[in-house]
Amino acid sequence: MARSLGELAAQFGCELVGDPAVTVSGVATLGNAGDGQLSFFSNRAYRKQLRETCAAAVLLTAEDSKDCPVPALVVDDPYLVYALIAAELYPPPPLQVGVHVSANVSPTASISPGAEISAHVIVGDDTVIGNGAYIAPGVVVGPRCSIGEHSHILANATLVQDVIVGRRCIIHSGAVIGADGFGNAKSRGRWIKVPQIGRVLIGDDVEVGANTCIDRGSLDDTVIGDGVRLDNLIQIGHNVNIGAHTALAAQCGVAGSATIGQRCMIAGQAGLVGHISICDDVVVGGATKIWKDITEPGFYTGGFPGEKDSEWKKKVARFRRLGDLVKRVATLEKRAGKNL
Amino acid sequence: MARSLGELAAQFGCELVGDPAVTVSGVATLGNAGDGQLSFFSNRAYRKQLRETCAAAVLLTAEDSKDCPVPALVVDDPYLVYALIAAELYPPPPLQVGVHVSANVSPTASISPGAEISAHVIVGDDTVIGNGAYIAPGVVVGPRCSIGEHSHILANATLVQDVIVGRRCIIHSGAVIGADGFGNAKSRGRWIKVPQIGRVLIGDDVEVGANTCIDRGSLDDTVIGDGVRLDNLIQIGHNVNIGAHTALAAQCGVAGSATIGQRCMIAGQAGLVGHISICDDVVVGGATKIWKDITEPGFYTGGFPGEKDSEWKKKVARFRRLGDLVKRVATLEKRAGKNL
Amino acid sequence: MARSLGELAAQFGCELVGDPAVTVSGVATLGNAGDGQLSFFSNRAYRKQLRETCAAAVLLTAEDSKDCPVPALVVDDPYLVYALIAAELYPPPPLQVGVHVSANVSPTASISPGAEISAHVIVGDDTVIGNGAYIAPGVVVGPRCSIGEHSHILANATLVQDVIVGRRCIIHSGAVIGADGFGNAKSRGRWIKVPQIGRVLIGDDVEVGANTCIDRGSLDDTVIGDGVRLDNLIQIGHNVNIGAHTALAAQCGVAGSATIGQRCMIAGQAGLVGHISICDDVVVGGATKIWKDITEPGFYTGGFPGEKDSEWKKKVARFRRLGDLVKRVATLEKRAGKNL
Repeated sequence: MARSLGELAAQFGCELVGDPAVTVSGVATLGNAGDGQLSFFSNRAYRKQLRETCAAAVLLTAEDSKDCPVPALVVDDPYLVYALIAAELYPPPPLQVGVHVSANVSPTASISPGAEISAHVIVGDDTVIGNGAYIAPGVVVGPRCSIGEHSHILANATLVQDVIVGRRCIIHSGAVIGADGFGNAKSRGRWIKVPQIGRVLIGDDVEVGANTCIDRGSLDDTVIGDGVRLDNLIQIGHNVNIGAHTALAAQCGVAGSATIGQRCMIAGQAGLVGHISICDDVVVGGATKIWKDITEPGFYTGGFPGEKDSEWKKKVARFRRLGDLVKRVATLEKRAGKNL
Repeated sequence: MARSLGELAAQFGCELVGDPAVTVSGVATLGNAGDGQLSFFSNRAYRKQLRETCAAAVLLTAEDSKDCPVPALVVDDPYLVYALIAAELYPPPPLQVGVHVSANVSPTASISPGAEISAHVIVGDDTVIGNGAYIAPGVVVGPRCSIGEHSHILANATLVQDVIVGRRCIIHSGAVIGADGFGNAKSRGRWIKVPQIGRVLIGDDVEVGANTCIDRGSLDDTVIGDGVRLDNLIQIGHNVNIGAHTALAAQCGVAGSATIGQRCMIAGQAGLVGHISICDDVVVGGATKIWKDITEPGFYTGGFPGEKDSEWKKKVARFRRLGDLVKRVATLEKRAGKNL
Repeated sequence: MARSLGELAAQFGCELVGDPAVTVSGVATLGNAGDGQLSFFSNRAYRKQLRETCAAAVLLTAEDSKDCPVPALVVDDPYLVYALIAAELYPPPPLQVGVHVSANVSPTASISPGAEISAHVIVGDDTVIGNGAYIAPGVVVGPRCSIGEHSHILANATLVQDVIVGRRCIIHSGAVIGADGFGNAKSRGRWIKVPQIGRVLIGDDVEVGANTCIDRGSLDDTVIGDGVRLDNLIQIGHNVNIGAHTALAAQCGVAGSATIGQRCMIAGQAGLVGHISICDDVVVGGATKIWKDITEPGFYTGGFPGEKDSEWKKKVARFRRLGDLVKRVATLEKRAGKNL
């Protein structure tokens, strides 16, 4: 589906520098793009590639347009407009609506005639699948689930039971949503399982990464707000509540009953202990562990970067002897006191 | 299934404060419970909710019963008794015993007539499935496995081969048990795979979380003791041995040939290096990395909590200059020596 | 398949100390091996077991042969030769070539007659499966993939789309390869998905662990070099490039567009931020976080080991008061200056 630069400029509010009749039908990086391919410039590290690009056109800001040797679509946020144009140029394949002969659908489930239920899918009792939904091969959707309109559940994902997914969500392959939370009571040195009976409520426009786990609530529900982004291999414990438009990068862990506000960004491998509360607009750095409530928006970090082992070992040794240093300074202070 | 408070008090050894004829048929949190719903109070943070609860009855200790506005079941460990009562009120759905027509069972496998083999399940050669076992949709149980009585293997889990599961276990969705361990020998800059031929032995009453991995032994077996609890997204390397009634929270990693004692508790995102040994009754804090044997029971931690980036950066800068500070103190000591 | 020690010594270049007619048909640890079982000694911690072994024969170095009470195969690298012999003694089961009746293969896919497509497998449009390839039960191979000769894709793994796998690879169960990367643009407080259209290119002789995720490239491809070893539960972000013969242990995370050189070894739970570059022959310690380029081969570490909580708390308290200590030293220096 080729689009002319003139059309794109009009549709996306760009200023066009160049021939409006030039067409693009795909996207590529500055370094690889050629005829018919649109690129974008939003990271200064790639200025050299911009100057040498053979793209059909480049999305960039007014400030950078002087470095562009080819037609330019000038706009305030090139990356955002790139995302919107790329979505038009690469539409998802059309659904093959209907239920595949190898799928297993409960007689009490309700499947929209506008949904695609692929091969080897399971749909459990009392589950509802909305119009335009796509349930990919090997997916298990257990009982009492609901998949909103135009949501996609991708291959081999599992919605165990009582999972309510909003509209236009994407649940990636291998994700497990609605498994029991980690609830155990102790009895004479043994663990007794605490039944987990809550649901998982997922808002609209949510994306859940591959092999990510979201546990069902123990009693109340686990809640994922509208527009939330969860990357791969994330753990969301029971009764967690994540506010709208918050994003968590890969391998984060959020322990049970933690609450995260809206528009937060949590970098990869970060961890939140249970029962704490993070306010809106908090940014947490990579691998940072949050042990307490955060009540003020801002950027929170912890941890040390790796360095040459010999250097790091020296630092650790000094850190371990810090108590000695404190004593030595106290001794000096005493002596200095005498000398005053 | 409604139960009267009188019956519950008698069965679970509670003192009843209130009308024994009141019935409960479900459980809910203090804040949400209403008619017919039992709640419990075990976390002081919820005292306000206790005072305002509309639950049909509340499980709590004698000490807290004065704050309870509704019938009370008084007991030493309310959370434990809550777990036991909830298990009665929410029994698992009855099995639909037999082998689903879409399942694929090896002719050399042995399936108890009291087991349920669901849709799209695979059962490999020489595998034995016990009475009351539930194999959920999409599960692959490879060759030479054994699933003990009343164990549940949930949707899309994989038991690769040579996995022996005890009785009353729950293996959650997406778990992979019995995959090859990470065994590689080096040969002129290349990795040569070391064949992995051990088994995974899982005791009775074990729970394995969603998307958790337990590798098969390289030669000897990987062993998970009775009553162990593994949360989601945990890595258990080859030849690891975990003692009975030990619990590991989500995203922990245990490297190959490590041994963990009985009744240990390992918090989320912790890590144990390979070939070490942890004695019984050890508690490891969240995200703590254990590099050496632990021979004494107790609480072990490491790591720093996240804080405002500006504050953390100052601390890191001081830490980096600690060597300078040590030198400055040594200089002062020399001078002080002269002044003595 | 029994082999005589004489044959093995000749084939693998070992010096035989003992009867060449003795045969072995299996392998076991020094402590467990008996008649017909070969063992190896490469870790000094097991010297006692060597001295008491009942193995039919032991692979070891000349230096250690004096401690061996049974026939010995003497060689420079016993572990490597053990790996090679074990691979001969435990060959993978022969393929059952052909397409299982319950598999679902696109009419535009091309399946070698020498490949095995197991039960409940999906093969998407335009996908090519090579000779000797094994696609295990429950695997979904989406459109436009290619599986090279003799590669094994194990149960319930998912290759989402546009995944090119080389020859002799092993993709373990639950791995998800080719899912969308984490690409999001912000628009007035909301996330807009950035279409992900790149591929995943995997070289020859690569092993990918259970439940590991490798995202497709956003525009260019994600590239995994020949001979790479990825353990379980690893996250590889979009556009990452991993050099040949590099190994990553379990639960590592590599953020988008990072580049790792050849022959690197990254220990478990380590993390690399996005857009950085690590040169060849770098070793990264367990749980170490790499924030910047590494341009020099060597061993890089970070992080503190766990210890008794009471001890660690003292250290943390001193660390927090380091600013005070710096001030106290400065005060002493001023006073000392006066005293000079």
